[in-house]
Amino acid sequence: MTDFDYSARLSRAQELVAGARLAGLVIGTGSQMRYLTGLELDSHERLSALVVPPAGPVRLVGPKTDVGALELGGIELAAWSDGEDPYALCGEALGEGAIGVGTALTADHVLRLQALGHDTVLAEEVLAELFMVKEPAELDELRAAAEAIDRVHSRVPGLLRAGRTEEDIARDLEQLILAEHAEVDFVIVGSGPNGANPHHSHSARALAEGEVVVVDIGGVLESGYRSDCTRTYTVGTPADPEVERAYGVLARAHAAAVAAVRPGVAAQDIDAAAREVIEAAGYGEYFFHRTGHGIGLEGHEAPYIIAGNDTPLREGMAFSIEPGIYLPGRWGMRLEDIVTVTEGGCEPLNNGPRELGQ
Amino acid sequence: MTDFDYSARLSRAQELVAGARLAGLVIGTGSQMRYLTGLELDSHERLSALVVPPAGPVRLVGPKTDVGALELGGIELAAWSDGEDPYALCGEALGEGAIGVGTALTADHVLRLQALGHDTVLAEEVLAELFMVKEPAELDELRAAAEAIDRVHSRVPGLLRAGRTEEDIARDLEQLILAEHAEVDFVIVGSGPNGANPHHSHSARALAEGEVVVVDIGGVLESGYRSDCTRTYTVGTPADPEVERAYGVLARAHAAAVAAVRPGVAAQDIDAAAREVIEAAGYGEYFFHRTGHGIGLEGHEAPYIIAGNDTPLREGMAFSIEPGIYLPGRWGMRLEDIVTVTEGGCEPLNNGPRELGQ
Repeated sequence: MTDFDYSARLSRAQELVAGARLAGLVIGTGSQMRYLTGLELDSHERLSALVVPPAGPVRLVGPKTDVGALELGGIELAAWSDGEDPYALCGEALGEGAIGVGTALTADHVLRLQALGHDTVLAEEVLAELFMVKEPAELDELRAAAEAIDRVHSRVPGLLRAGRTEEDIARDLEQLILAEHAEVDFVIVGSGPNGANPHHSHSARALAEGEVVVVDIGGVLESGYRSDCTRTYTVGTPADPEVERAYGVLARAHAAAVAAVRPGVAAQDIDAAAREVIEAAGYGEYFFHRTGHGIGLEGHEAPYIIAGNDTPLREGMAFSIEPGIYLPGRWGMRLEDIVTVTEGGCEPLNNGPRELGQ
Repeated sequence: MTDFDYSARLSRAQELVAGARLAGLVIGTGSQMRYLTGLELDSHERLSALVVPPAGPVRLVGPKTDVGALELGGIELAAWSDGEDPYALCGEALGEGAIGVGTALTADHVLRLQALGHDTVLAEEVLAELFMVKEPAELDELRAAAEAIDRVHSRVPGLLRAGRTEEDIARDLEQLILAEHAEVDFVIVGSGPNGANPHHSHSARALAEGEVVVVDIGGVLESGYRSDCTRTYTVGTPADPEVERAYGVLARAHAAAVAAVRPGVAAQDIDAAAREVIEAAGYGEYFFHRTGHGIGLEGHEAPYIIAGNDTPLREGMAFSIEPGIYLPGRWGMRLEDIVTVTEGGCEPLNNGPRELGQ
């Protein structure tokens, strides 16, 4: 597994905290803590948090039962026992000003940190650049994840037969994903009308000849980095003549969004590039979700590719491009690749066939 | 499966909100939403929340992709599309005053709700009575869960043989838990020195003759209610002569805590009852966690049985009593039952043998 340079990440985080004149960051368990330290701690109702002041030692606050035996190079351990106040242990490591709180902290922890008397902002706003712009080693992981899920998609046509249920297919897909990743993240098999619900998971519905099937799957590598890729398939020849026409529109929308990606362009312009093609073809009202989301240690993270997001794209950002068309009661279709922004434009990390699969 | 009366729960929640003069509650996805509505929604970065004003219609705010097709008796649906502001949809259903926020809401949602201009308090403080005092139908579920895990514990002595690893045993336990529950919640197998870490999970360490093994296991029923029970076993006759003496102390501490449970006694007095026995025997410093936690749709919830918690016990509360003694580098032991407060005192829901198991 790749070794990441956590001490460089923490130093950069401290620079950003100092630059923003914050009291410090308080990061809960989850992907933000893993990104900064490599630590994979469970979330409990007991506070475990990384406290990053603008200067001086970074501190890990956690219950003695969870962190008592950790040895952490360069990080000061502040273990607490039941009955002690973990928020005070955070407070004494903070400077003056607002606290940048990690997204994963739940309301109980957020309100108790606020009771220390500091204002709060979201840590990810301060660290946005650090989280969004992937290091080369992170892009290697995302590329490996994308290749892994592409290999799974290459097996999908063999699984889709009339009479098999979405659940049958999902079970097969889980095994295939696990053979290529450390964990299954999610499996969507949306056949016929179920495909028109973008967040349908899978059901006991059996596939019929001529139907459209949306297959959106993702896994998690040992390193924590994720795959996420959608292809749309048909069971034999599509019964509805509109399917091929609409799929042509979808593929053009996807290609237009990919072609628009380059450093300096706003995230919302990528969304607009896909949406314009779909709207011009008369399917605008049937594409009712954003065009994409960032990906890394989280399956969905910034930058979001959505109207209103004027974040300029930067080299090293990685996100999905996944326009869809959903006709209620009939079928849905979506085409999704993870891409990264390169100096010259865009590198798709998923590279399986982008045609309607059979 | 038991039918719970969600509309009665929501009415009671609205009375409590009105009594506390709050603007309303905003409850994220998870067990609090499930308790109030029966809805099991996934948590996404997109806000899904139940908005409970002091009077008038309760509202479910959620992304169209997730909640668009839900039909909810008596609950108003406010579905939003990407690009719309879900926090405004919450705000327009709220009255004047502070918002009671659900524990499961993460920092991103909490800070954006606070930006509406309301103060925030924790919803569970307002609803404490509702969450902590279990209805008869909830106690039936907790009793069924306890009986299920007791049956699993009855199989443990047959699994513990010198040479088998903690992981071997954990795998067997997962199968046994699944045979009795809808999901595995957690499996702790702490052999020898690993047992001295109360939050050890399981490892490749092989058991040896004469060792102590802590087995703490839990599952989740279809209804969402949970089991959680610890027993301490030995592999044959304990090699360390101190084990039987210390276990005698532990069993007396456990019994003292159970005997102290009755309506009106403060939660901290139950903790003190167990702790006094262990301290008097000279093991005080080796019992460094609280004596217990509430249980229901969450594995750990209020009331916490801990010094400083003066919440008076009430009939229908359900919580663990789980003192432990942990000698670093040697072994650990813990004895845990879920109990409920009855009119006359205490009903243990777990009833497997409480002796040191072999």
